[in-house]
Amino acid sequence: MGDSQYFQAYEDLEIHEIMLRDRPRQEAYCNAITSNAAMFKDKVVLDVGAGTGILSIFCARAGAKTVYAVEASNLAAIAVDVVRENSLTPIIKVIQQRIEDFELPPTIDKVDIIVSEWMGFYLLHEGMLDSVIFARNKFLRPGGRMFPETAAIYVAPCSVPALFDYWDNVDGVKMQSFAQLLRAKRSSKPEILTIGKEDLLHEGIVMSWIDLHEVSPEDLDEISLKEVVPVRRDGSYQGLCIWFDCQFPTHDPDGGIVFSTSPKSPQTHWKQCIVVLPSNACEDVTKGEPIAFGLVMKRNPNDRRKYNIEMSLLDSAEVEHPLPCDCIMTKCILTKAHLATMEVDN
Amino acid sequence: MGDSQYFQAYEDLEIHEIMLRDRPRQEAYCNAITSNAAMFKDKVVLDVGAGTGILSIFCARAGAKTVYAVEASNLAAIAVDVVRENSLTPIIKVIQQRIEDFELPPTIDKVDIIVSEWMGFYLLHEGMLDSVIFARNKFLRPGGRMFPETAAIYVAPCSVPALFDYWDNVDGVKMQSFAQLLRAKRSSKPEILTIGKEDLLHEGIVMSWIDLHEVSPEDLDEISLKEVVPVRRDGSYQGLCIWFDCQFPTHDPDGGIVFSTSPKSPQTHWKQCIVVLPSNACEDVTKGEPIAFGLVMKRNPNDRRKYNIEMSLLDSAEVEHPLPCDCIMTKCILTKAHLATMEVDN
Repeated sequence: MGDSQYFQAYEDLEIHEIMLRDRPRQEAYCNAITSNAAMFKDKVVLDVGAGTGILSIFCARAGAKTVYAVEASNLAAIAVDVVRENSLTPIIKVIQQRIEDFELPPTIDKVDIIVSEWMGFYLLHEGMLDSVIFARNKFLRPGGRMFPETAAIYVAPCSVPALFDYWDNVDGVKMQSFAQLLRAKRSSKPEILTIGKEDLLHEGIVMSWIDLHEVSPEDLDEISLKEVVPVRRDGSYQGLCIWFDCQFPTHDPDGGIVFSTSPKSPQTHWKQCIVVLPSNACEDVTKGEPIAFGLVMKRNPNDRRKYNIEMSLLDSAEVEHPLPCDCIMTKCILTKAHLATMEVDN
Repeated sequence: MGDSQYFQAYEDLEIHEIMLRDRPRQEAYCNAITSNAAMFKDKVVLDVGAGTGILSIFCARAGAKTVYAVEASNLAAIAVDVVRENSLTPIIKVIQQRIEDFELPPTIDKVDIIVSEWMGFYLLHEGMLDSVIFARNKFLRPGGRMFPETAAIYVAPCSVPALFDYWDNVDGVKMQSFAQLLRAKRSSKPEILTIGKEDLLHEGIVMSWIDLHEVSPEDLDEISLKEVVPVRRDGSYQGLCIWFDCQFPTHDPDGGIVFSTSPKSPQTHWKQCIVVLPSNACEDVTKGEPIAFGLVMKRNPNDRRKYNIEMSLLDSAEVEHPLPCDCIMTKCILTKAHLATMEVDN
């Protein structure tokens, strides 16, 4: 969709209702900003895609001197009301403008902190990160902070009971012919749905790790992975599960606040993104068995805000395994034993 | 929407996916049919709006001799496959036809049992009950059974935290200006959403009780209620909650299987139907306080399958109270005391 449609969608109050009622999302941003009050004290903050203004309010409450809440859609008018309701009008300047058209007032050179909630399904859907990068390049002072400051995309082989096993026995009735149609109707694109942590066949590998201080839009044009992972438990291999997490700045040496959309974390409105295997590619796997696959996320040439996701099934005998590898292929068991011996020898 | 659109909607696999994964729905029908196997043994059954055929399969499993599974949409083709998958093709005859056009084979005069899952939001939305009544009048033998056989619509004053109280304090931020827009956008029609049992201000009164053996389509043209109810606990009066339940035939003198969409029952895909009060009509109420209201459900003149729902706020001092009434109005307390005295005297 073009820019106008994109901003139109964001004017939909119900999307914001869902986001504002997404407790893990709200708590992550609220805690990240509140627990870092020292970083915000007397600082100038830019909120990119401010929506209803709630992140700007968190920043003002944390002690920011000025917050520029830039929102392209008509939601800006709502943000003005919400800011007024919280008596923060002197601190938060709501500006209805695309960030690409926004200019800081002449008296302000740069901002100290950029906050934004830009994450889409499988992290990159909607491509709002491009606007955040634009804002960082143009407005963030050297040494300024990004909230969040890193993000990572994970992938793991998984079972998808909602599209497979549930239909083996619906109150005693076999419904695989129905399930087959369900899957056929959805095979053209990844599914946004929730799976349980018990459906994961592996703890997940990092497909992409993004440093918000460094990343460029070109880095996001194509992300790809070719991997072999050992299955952690017996189960049905029916798809790939993609999720993401984000990390916020911290003074805490033990690490800061991580917001995660993993199946192991409390459910969010992002759910998980599942690439479902064709039925004839599904297989029962046993603990230790290697699964090899390729995954490519590439910008849709007709709409940079969207991605095409392509999965390829690879032969685990032909793909290079990591060193050491936990899988049960003879080569990997021998290599691992050899490496362990060397470790003992040292 | 017209008939063609109506049937189109039912072809949407995802609607059926939601219904088939609605555990309370599935369990109620499965238990009602399975636990009444004696009623089904060697009987002829008609499944009105058979969808994917699952109810027909329950009936065949319970011992039915023949099941006519009548489904107007293309889903009939899926039902054929599902029936075959369960090796019940000899027993279940799937017919793609509107029930109004369907004819039993010449050798069969009437059916013994009609099963159907015809319930819509607030019971009557979609108006499929008209087709079930048509089927009953034309095909059910005298003394035949309806599954379900009764249904009731309930209404109770309630709180609606998702549209009111949540927005008083979203992680410390006041967002009533946002909530006001949310409500304004939704004030034109009742909301389908879930409330908690703790949000009910009363256990509910019966707005309509329907005997599936007797009801006519005209009985469903308009259903209305004028009522005063005493509030059971202190709380915020923000809307009326409408839900329904259905009861299945039973040999059990203690009553049979009731399927309920009450806020007190496990959540179903019907959720509840909430008529939200305008903000200026909301009020804090205390235990025993009377709430008076009128509620009318009337068929939409442009689409008999839909209803217009109108609520009116009444003055509890001007409406006739039940006898006895539990409310705290002086008149009711005195009347109740007087009635209690008479009871003791008897």
